[in-house]
Amino acid sequence: MYKILDRYKNPNDIKLMSLKELNYLSSDIREFLIESVSKTGGHLASNLGVVELTLSLYNVFDMEKDKIVWDVGHQSYVHKILTYRRDKFSTLKKFQGLSGFPKRCESKYDCFDTGHSSTSISAALGIARARDLMKKDFDVIAVIGDGALTGGMAFEALNDLGFNKTKLIIILNDNQMSISQNVGGLSTYLSTLRLDPSYNRFKNDINNTLEKVVFGKNIVSSLNKIKDGIKQMVVPGMFFEEMGIKYLGPIDGHNIKDMSKVLKMAKEIDGPVIIHAITQKGKGYNFAEENPNKFHGIGPFDLESGKLPLNNSKSYSAAFGDGLIEIANENQNVVAITAAMPDGTGLKKFSNIYKDRFFDVGIAEQHGVTLAAGLATQGIKPVFAVYSTFLQRAYDQVLHDVCIQNLPVVFAIDRAGIVGEDGETHQGVFDISYLTPIPNITLVSPKCVEELKYMLRWAVDFNEGPVAIRYPRGGDLKDITLSPLENFSYGKWEILNQGEKIAIIAAGKMVQHSIKAKNILQEKNINPIIINASFIKPMDISLLDDLCDKKYKIVTVEDNMISGGLGQSIVNYIKDKKEKIYVKNLGFKDEFIPHGDVNKLYSINNLHPEGIAEEILKMI
Amino acid sequence: MYKILDRYKNPNDIKLMSLKELNYLSSDIREFLIESVSKTGGHLASNLGVVELTLSLYNVFDMEKDKIVWDVGHQSYVHKILTYRRDKFSTLKKFQGLSGFPKRCESKYDCFDTGHSSTSISAALGIARARDLMKKDFDVIAVIGDGALTGGMAFEALNDLGFNKTKLIIILNDNQMSISQNVGGLSTYLSTLRLDPSYNRFKNDINNTLEKVVFGKNIVSSLNKIKDGIKQMVVPGMFFEEMGIKYLGPIDGHNIKDMSKVLKMAKEIDGPVIIHAITQKGKGYNFAEENPNKFHGIGPFDLESGKLPLNNSKSYSAAFGDGLIEIANENQNVVAITAAMPDGTGLKKFSNIYKDRFFDVGIAEQHGVTLAAGLATQGIKPVFAVYSTFLQRAYDQVLHDVCIQNLPVVFAIDRAGIVGEDGETHQGVFDISYLTPIPNITLVSPKCVEELKYMLRWAVDFNEGPVAIRYPRGGDLKDITLSPLENFSYGKWEILNQGEKIAIIAAGKMVQHSIKAKNILQEKNINPIIINASFIKPMDISLLDDLCDKKYKIVTVEDNMISGGLGQSIVNYIKDKKEKIYVKNLGFKDEFIPHGDVNKLYSINNLHPEGIAEEILKMI
Repeated sequence: MYKILDRYKNPNDIKLMSLKELNYLSSDIREFLIESVSKTGGHLASNLGVVELTLSLYNVFDMEKDKIVWDVGHQSYVHKILTYRRDKFSTLKKFQGLSGFPKRCESKYDCFDTGHSSTSISAALGIARARDLMKKDFDVIAVIGDGALTGGMAFEALNDLGFNKTKLIIILNDNQMSISQNVGGLSTYLSTLRLDPSYNRFKNDINNTLEKVVFGKNIVSSLNKIKDGIKQMVVPGMFFEEMGIKYLGPIDGHNIKDMSKVLKMAKEIDGPVIIHAITQKGKGYNFAEENPNKFHGIGPFDLESGKLPLNNSKSYSAAFGDGLIEIANENQNVVAITAAMPDGTGLKKFSNIYKDRFFDVGIAEQHGVTLAAGLATQGIKPVFAVYSTFLQRAYDQVLHDVCIQNLPVVFAIDRAGIVGEDGETHQGVFDISYLTPIPNITLVSPKCVEELKYMLRWAVDFNEGPVAIRYPRGGDLKDITLSPLENFSYGKWEILNQGEKIAIIAAGKMVQHSIKAKNILQEKNINPIIINASFIKPMDISLLDDLCDKKYKIVTVEDNMISGGLGQSIVNYIKDKKEKIYVKNLGFKDEFIPHGDVNKLYSINNLHPEGIAEEILKMI
Repeated sequence: MYKILDRYKNPNDIKLMSLKELNYLSSDIREFLIESVSKTGGHLASNLGVVELTLSLYNVFDMEKDKIVWDVGHQSYVHKILTYRRDKFSTLKKFQGLSGFPKRCESKYDCFDTGHSSTSISAALGIARARDLMKKDFDVIAVIGDGALTGGMAFEALNDLGFNKTKLIIILNDNQMSISQNVGGLSTYLSTLRLDPSYNRFKNDINNTLEKVVFGKNIVSSLNKIKDGIKQMVVPGMFFEEMGIKYLGPIDGHNIKDMSKVLKMAKEIDGPVIIHAITQKGKGYNFAEENPNKFHGIGPFDLESGKLPLNNSKSYSAAFGDGLIEIANENQNVVAITAAMPDGTGLKKFSNIYKDRFFDVGIAEQHGVTLAAGLATQGIKPVFAVYSTFLQRAYDQVLHDVCIQNLPVVFAIDRAGIVGEDGETHQGVFDISYLTPIPNITLVSPKCVEELKYMLRWAVDFNEGPVAIRYPRGGDLKDITLSPLENFSYGKWEILNQGEKIAIIAAGKMVQHSIKAKNILQEKNINPIIINASFIKPMDISLLDDLCDKKYKIVTVEDNMISGGLGQSIVNYIKDKKEKIYVKNLGFKDEFIPHGDVNKLYSINNLHPEGIAEEILKMI
């Protein structure tokens, strides 16, 4: 079916292929990727962009000893195909199937697990320094996108690298995108490099330059000559050169011949080097080329039309985006901040309507949070929309810059709870644990999509300190409809079902699971109280007191780690009661949660309605 | 006593002073600072370095409306003296006295609280954008050191600023130091700027250039001319220019005349500008000029000799440094990492002995942690020494890069617990809370200085995953001597006193407080068990079971937030016992802990021996 790909056996094959064969192989891989991801879903556009880049790496380096760190890792599919994992692509992102990111436990060819942005240079530098300490001999390559380069830690690593001159190759995979369109001074700078006539000159001159290289005894002085020659061609690369990192490029990342030559050149340089490769996200699939955002991380789609199956249910992200526009219509002090996620967070529409009140800071959560703090000191009301897992990047800024000063910043924490297919690195199951111990913060969660709008309005109007609203990926359960709370009393919970003996206290979407659990239990004549713990911090103490007085057994349900979660806050409050109150905490145990379908993961952890009912039956 | 300083009344006075008077005022302020800090302790060297810089800012800007954000904030003393706080300097860093950092609640002239490094550009950018949104008219200035500029979030902010062209003035206060000597490619780059002949040319040409400026209608085109003129003088500033930020300098930060002129120039530029000012840390006090590290943050010292009172007790930091050298002697795979804190963390000696096995990454905790992760994948054993409060910066990297991969990295968490005088921003009271919920990590704490060495050895030898060791600032209590545990069983606690009815479970130095509390209680015929909870995660379950079986009342003592602390882990384990077990948690309540003497802060929170005894008496 795939002429060349089917013949491919192992990484060394690449070196034996002609350029023509490699180009055929590229086409095969693209077809395979499009076909495969159309069925399973996954990251498509980023992988289509690095086919030739990956083949060039295989062409020059020895995969049995050299090591590639893939920044973020959502561009590692080609690498996975080439390292004995092609047959597992039908299980991509499925529970116990192939991960969508590099995983050391999956293959010895994955040398470092990635998932969050901007870690690759640091990790690669660690690997390279270990090599030098152990006097081993191999190459280390970090492949990082231009978007990821805006993350502060990438700069921290460049700063260290340029100073200490460790031998390391960085490939700047410049597709002029992060997930959405890229922002930042660095991005503008990279554009000037791309437009620089030396780009084209470089392409022509590189062969001549290389032919002049004398490999052998006088390699150092020869390389210095190359360097100087190249420098003349690529004066714009001064940004990197000034940090002490040799710059080669820009170069067409889809040209295997040129890429291989530059890689060979880089391999011979005894110090840090950055290769600026220009690629096109989504290359080779029209729909993805035209709309790389949509085809960044995508569910299964129709191959011929590029269309996704219709999804009628409204997502929390969409409700957030719509709700914020309504609020911003009325309150001109409201502004929105995102860290390179205008689409994912539902802010795209807002960004078009309120251009001046929308700040995309790049992949820079730390800066985003402190920017919000600065805005808030002046009476502006910033709403920072961010995924739970990425807010981890700005933990110190939340604590140090927002909460110590008790500034009224609103954090809209999307993808809280499990996200499913993206696995360990993306599950949003720590936010309750890391936010609760911070003084001054208020943490709330809506029980349904519609409630998010009212809660957001409440949070924006609350001016006494920071408020974080956590809500999950996707939308509501299909077979349940809840009336949203429209007005909130600070720290007050909502009783959704009056019952006896057992009280289920649930947060966020787990309220929906709990209602369904109650329906199951009612068939067995058990009728628990259902409480929507809309306020995770502070808790509704008087309601808790009441439950204790009436000797209810309490079951807490949350899509967060049990450790540090709402359930534990409840246990810790109740401990001072004179009599013993039985409490059962449902949530995630002390393990990282792998990739897989959200419902599968819920059921494994007994957080699906049946599981909650089962746990309650066990308790009584 | 201070000729000019005594006459000084308010910020506007500065504008009325002649250059000669300003220079006299500089001398007065220096003398006052040296005299005052010699009595109270505080940050001396950094403040001596910015006297003229601060006066120049006051000379050009209007302190009643313009806003200065002081990065880190340990250079804000001059600003405090000039804004009606001179008379409070005798209370510097004392409980309820003057803070060592800018504080909005202390003065309207402090527009943003700082403490951790590299936040100023983000905060100032927020303030500037709020100004623009509200159509107000004032200037915003961020003063940031060359060390702080190595922190990733400063780069994130520069990237945003250069792209969006917000009007903002950054003063790069380049003293060629962070707290210790600076590292990084950027630092090398700044050195080349300093050495560039244009530095001197700039000093001479600036007057001529300025005289040619026509302020008025054609200001924009005039400024472009200036810019081009300046650019020719300062080609090396391309690093910043390439990010879209105008660069002026380098300039002598101690020359009020030149500084004022450049500031005026910057004020007229409608966009982001960075002024590169060269200053000398410790300027004007010989001992501080010679040894700026020692006089960075210092206790009271002798003015004439520059000497500190002798301190005979060994600190945890010193024990850590010595211990690591011993271990490194035997195990050549052990390396040490610091984020710009070789002195503070006790690694200075190590860095001299094992140059190749020591990595100072700059103020870059995020990179430091992921670098460690990379090293660990290759069989190197990295020990990252970091203050508890600064590890907050790398929360995501600890979770995402170290713990998900379960890599055997050792975190040596210094300054865990309260640090005292540096206040809210520096207290290390969150680490137990933010680390405990992370799977795979082991968290331990030694009960005394001597135990740290054995524990460190244990941690380095433990290869099954990451280990964090937390220990406090300073040394042991003077009037207590404990025998260190020399061998550790994984997850096993140590019983230090057999007793009845009450069990005190304490972690780290709180074990010492608890022993003293026991001594007080024994006088009242109460004899509690004392347990050293050397393992905070995982806990000693069998010992806990035993205590429950024997119906002990449990008191937990830790210098961490109660929320998410060890005590709460214990409560949460015990909740599943059939009978009610009484547990009292001592630790810090849900409030930020202000600056002040450590003992004062302990006593307010009932964590001093008398307080612990009192709480136990209340319980029974």
